[in-house]
Amino acid sequence: METNIEESIKIYGKKIDDLLKEIIPPDRDDYLSEPIWHHLRTGGKRIRPAICLITCKELGGNPDDALHFALAIEILHNMFLLHDDIEDGDTMRRDQPTVWVKYGIANAINSGDYLLARAYTSILTSPAPPDRKLKFLEIFTLTYEKTVEGQALDINARGVKDFTVEKYIELVKLKTGYYLACGMVGGAVASGNSNGTIDKIWDLGKLMGPAFQIKDDLIDLTVGKGRGGVIGSDIKEGKASFLYAYTSEVANADDIKVLIEIMTKQREKTTENDVKCVLDIYNRYGAIDHAQEYADDLIKQTYKIIDDIPTDNKTVFRDIANFMTQRMT
Amino acid sequence: METNIEESIKIYGKKIDDLLKEIIPPDRDDYLSEPIWHHLRTGGKRIRPAICLITCKELGGNPDDALHFALAIEILHNMFLLHDDIEDGDTMRRDQPTVWVKYGIANAINSGDYLLARAYTSILTSPAPPDRKLKFLEIFTLTYEKTVEGQALDINARGVKDFTVEKYIELVKLKTGYYLACGMVGGAVASGNSNGTIDKIWDLGKLMGPAFQIKDDLIDLTVGKGRGGVIGSDIKEGKASFLYAYTSEVANADDIKVLIEIMTKQREKTTENDVKCVLDIYNRYGAIDHAQEYADDLIKQTYKIIDDIPTDNKTVFRDIANFMTQRMT
Repeated sequence: METNIEESIKIYGKKIDDLLKEIIPPDRDDYLSEPIWHHLRTGGKRIRPAICLITCKELGGNPDDALHFALAIEILHNMFLLHDDIEDGDTMRRDQPTVWVKYGIANAINSGDYLLARAYTSILTSPAPPDRKLKFLEIFTLTYEKTVEGQALDINARGVKDFTVEKYIELVKLKTGYYLACGMVGGAVASGNSNGTIDKIWDLGKLMGPAFQIKDDLIDLTVGKGRGGVIGSDIKEGKASFLYAYTSEVANADDIKVLIEIMTKQREKTTENDVKCVLDIYNRYGAIDHAQEYADDLIKQTYKIIDDIPTDNKTVFRDIANFMTQRMT
Repeated sequence: METNIEESIKIYGKKIDDLLKEIIPPDRDDYLSEPIWHHLRTGGKRIRPAICLITCKELGGNPDDALHFALAIEILHNMFLLHDDIEDGDTMRRDQPTVWVKYGIANAINSGDYLLARAYTSILTSPAPPDRKLKFLEIFTLTYEKTVEGQALDINARGVKDFTVEKYIELVKLKTGYYLACGMVGGAVASGNSNGTIDKIWDLGKLMGPAFQIKDDLIDLTVGKGRGGVIGSDIKEGKASFLYAYTSEVANADDIKVLIEIMTKQREKTTENDVKCVLDIYNRYGAIDHAQEYADDLIKQTYKIIDDIPTDNKTVFRDIANFMTQRMT
């Protein structure tokens, strides 16, 4: 069934790309358009906006009514990538230098700010009636705000003491929960469904966020993330992962001391041996198995919510949940 | 008459401050609230939002109907200060370290992003009916977008060759024109006036932007800006001022070469002698007198527009134009 989701993403991705080029013309060749398109051309599968359109259709709506909102989500996603790359000091993204590396921090900040303006413009120029447009703007603004809060928590949580699973879940709900939910919620709004259904879609997205993020944390320790399959990028970055949160709670004082020491090292100073050492500690406390179970449990909870969504086609929502929590780039 | 404007600003400033504390609670003590309030506590006279409320009242509306929009303008202003300080490398603002210096670039970017979310929330939670709320959101988004464009132009125009008065005016219309107009336009919308009147207020603001900025450029060369009355900060920063634009057009090749050499020097390497040298060149071509005349002419043009605004009290708009183009901090 996952092929269907991927097929839909491909079809809807084309619609999104066409509107994207209208809202942010690629040929303006100025100090905003150039860095933005340097970034946008590096790829991205338009998964988030496609899920928005799929949700709208499956709930009985016309996907075209959700298109401007879906694009706004895609633009927001890219705005965060531009700003986060500066904040995280990431120099490469999808095998290309990041915008701040190629065009300087000032142009990267402005490009992100400009993207956000265009995201709002996308919603404001949608053909929706005033009340629905305002609803879109409320959902979008809430998501934008909560994601910023999550990012602020995240960058200040690296290598901190007494980090817990509870704090991790709070952080992840903010940083990726609203974000993953937002597209589906917008699709539900565009479909004209009741507030009750919209609330259920919010709940669904908010569970998918942590599930997605824990799986993403695990990928870093098993197959490695994007960059040439290197294992342990998150450890080098000192990222506040589920593994780090859980182990911080259950490990003995000596192990925690070693853990924090390695996590707070500068990325370039973290050796392969350090990574191995952290992995050993994680394994000793069964953190990886626990993370797997925790994520699976969250996904089971999403199934329960899906049962309450008024649609004949529950499968597609289960497919979305599985797809989104398995691998996204 | 100016005392009346200052008096009104003081009274309305209190209303703005009260709503500001509601929209951005000062006591949250987290990674966003703390840097934001470090910045907000350094001052600011709430001039822009107050002008919004004055405009609403003078056009026959209830200032309370413009309050949420007025606050959004004030928040937007501060969001730009946070991001611009990073981009310009400014380390001090109103005798305090800037946010990026005190809390790091990452927290400063996030704080700006968060402020923008709260500005939108301020408008979204205003008691205005849907259509008017959407109008507020359109004006706000347009202003935000154009100001980002202006900032992008500005940081890339420093010390460039063949800079002209035309380019300067384009830059300034974007960077400060929409911005100054926006508050007054929002006030006009809240007052329930016709689109014709709203268009005139846009025109008014767009003339005031360059007038304000040219006066600001002159202040830097005569009494000096805020920081202990030092003359020539703009020259040290290599800022694309009216003086620089005009002189670039009319000076001979040798003088232009010297000018660009000094303007492109790093701030800390620019000597007092360099500043004197640039001032000499400006004086030799009568740039300062020309700037004064150019700004005065713009203000005369604003008077013509004011004659067409349907209000019994033209004086207050002339006072606003004079006040805004004389000194703002």
